[in-house]
Amino acid sequence: MKSITSRDNAFYKELKALATSSQARRKSGLSLLDGVHLCQSWLELRGAPVHCVVSEAALANPEVAAIAAGAEAAGAPASVLPDALFGAISQVEHGVHVVFLVASPVPDKAPGLVESSVLLDGVQDPGNVGSILRSAAASGIRQVYCSPGTAFCWSPKVLRAAMGAHFVLDIFENIELAPLVRSAGIPVLATSGYAAERLYALDLRRPVAWVLGHEGQGVSQELLALATHRVAVPHAGKVESLNVAACAAVCFFEQLRQLQA
Amino acid sequence: MKSITSRDNAFYKELKALATSSQARRKSGLSLLDGVHLCQSWLELRGAPVHCVVSEAALANPEVAAIAAGAEAAGAPASVLPDALFGAISQVEHGVHVVFLVASPVPDKAPGLVESSVLLDGVQDPGNVGSILRSAAASGIRQVYCSPGTAFCWSPKVLRAAMGAHFVLDIFENIELAPLVRSAGIPVLATSGYAAERLYALDLRRPVAWVLGHEGQGVSQELLALATHRVAVPHAGKVESLNVAACAAVCFFEQLRQLQA
Repeated sequence: MKSITSRDNAFYKELKALATSSQARRKSGLSLLDGVHLCQSWLELRGAPVHCVVSEAALANPEVAAIAAGAEAAGAPASVLPDALFGAISQVEHGVHVVFLVASPVPDKAPGLVESSVLLDGVQDPGNVGSILRSAAASGIRQVYCSPGTAFCWSPKVLRAAMGAHFVLDIFENIELAPLVRSAGIPVLATSGYAAERLYALDLRRPVAWVLGHEGQGVSQELLALATHRVAVPHAGKVESLNVAACAAVCFFEQLRQLQA
Repeated sequence: MKSITSRDNAFYKELKALATSSQARRKSGLSLLDGVHLCQSWLELRGAPVHCVVSEAALANPEVAAIAAGAEAAGAPASVLPDALFGAISQVEHGVHVVFLVASPVPDKAPGLVESSVLLDGVQDPGNVGSILRSAAASGIRQVYCSPGTAFCWSPKVLRAAMGAHFVLDIFENIELAPLVRSAGIPVLATSGYAAERLYALDLRRPVAWVLGHEGQGVSQELLALATHRVAVPHAGKVESLNVAACAAVCFFEQLRQLQA
């Protein structure tokens, strides 16, 4: 394991840039996976990272030591930083100091809507995007299409909220959703608090594409019009709507309930 | 409408303390509702605030003007601040400058578990707590019990995420959950990714109490043991678990689906 001790080390500077600049992450196609759970998931599902980085103190933690050993066994270089230097590359307060540098997976050309999928139409909040990815993966959905206005999926906050869901999904970003919906081979269900059709009235025992919209404005008028169905989760209270990630979970798991019934 | 122009104004200092200190909010029992939606919901569901505060520029916004007029018509004083002073009392970036000062509603003595309820056992993240409150209110649940380790419900972040759900719920904070569960008059369902019982196998057409746990550790062993059922949302993927607010939404709306079927 290599030791890095200087703030002027070129690789350390690169890590710092990736930790703090979304532009650096987008441009390089590299991501930082922060913490034990994400690194373990990556090792298990994707194998070797580009680089494994730990702090001196964290090496005493058996989970961290096992991750570093696993990364090296998989052929990845590992480096150790003094704790004072590690702080600048982690956004997790009181976190365990282990980070994987990975190449953000770029899926092959998008196949179009042929299997159950999620379309994110301007979902802004990284926590919501991460929670939706996590629910999608847990309910067996494998493809996610994100409009240009949706939060960048490989940001640290989205990665943290999705808890490794990224590594089992094909995530297509910066996708114009209207042409995708127009050429869909499966029903497209746009969620809307104002829709007349009830979620539970639909036959979901087949592939469908779910469209989820912006936290304030919802799914765009264009996509609502293009969708096969506009669907609401029936409510029973004075509160006007659900959080978009909560709505997504209800929809995805209603589909899974019907599939497993 | 009164104009406040000095940073040394006593009421302005009180607002600033409430905006920045959770201790000040807990001690005073006062909360700040930030933004158009929360203020409108309060007016509609609870009536007059203690005080309505707007910025000079925001008064040009017809929604804000209507809120200020509504608050005054309901008997509340309203004050206007220069924009430069308003910034320090709002945590919403690029938000519309309208804030209600309200007395955080304190419900009567907790009635115990006799109708459908939510128990939060150390849920930490304000966004998760807010989303759970919102889903509870939207699915017709009216009572929420929070353990001492759960995020403070009347913080600005929880209020923002819950979008007004607070105003239709009875929220009991700092409640020891074990005695509550021991004396429950209805089935208590503790959620756990490791539980053998499937959500969909349960008859939910009756009042139940849902227990939701800490983001990392889940529901405590003590409450898992005390609960009538330990319940899992069945998954279909390689991802190990759901976000706690997503899990809550799936559970609450499965109950509503069964009730409405």
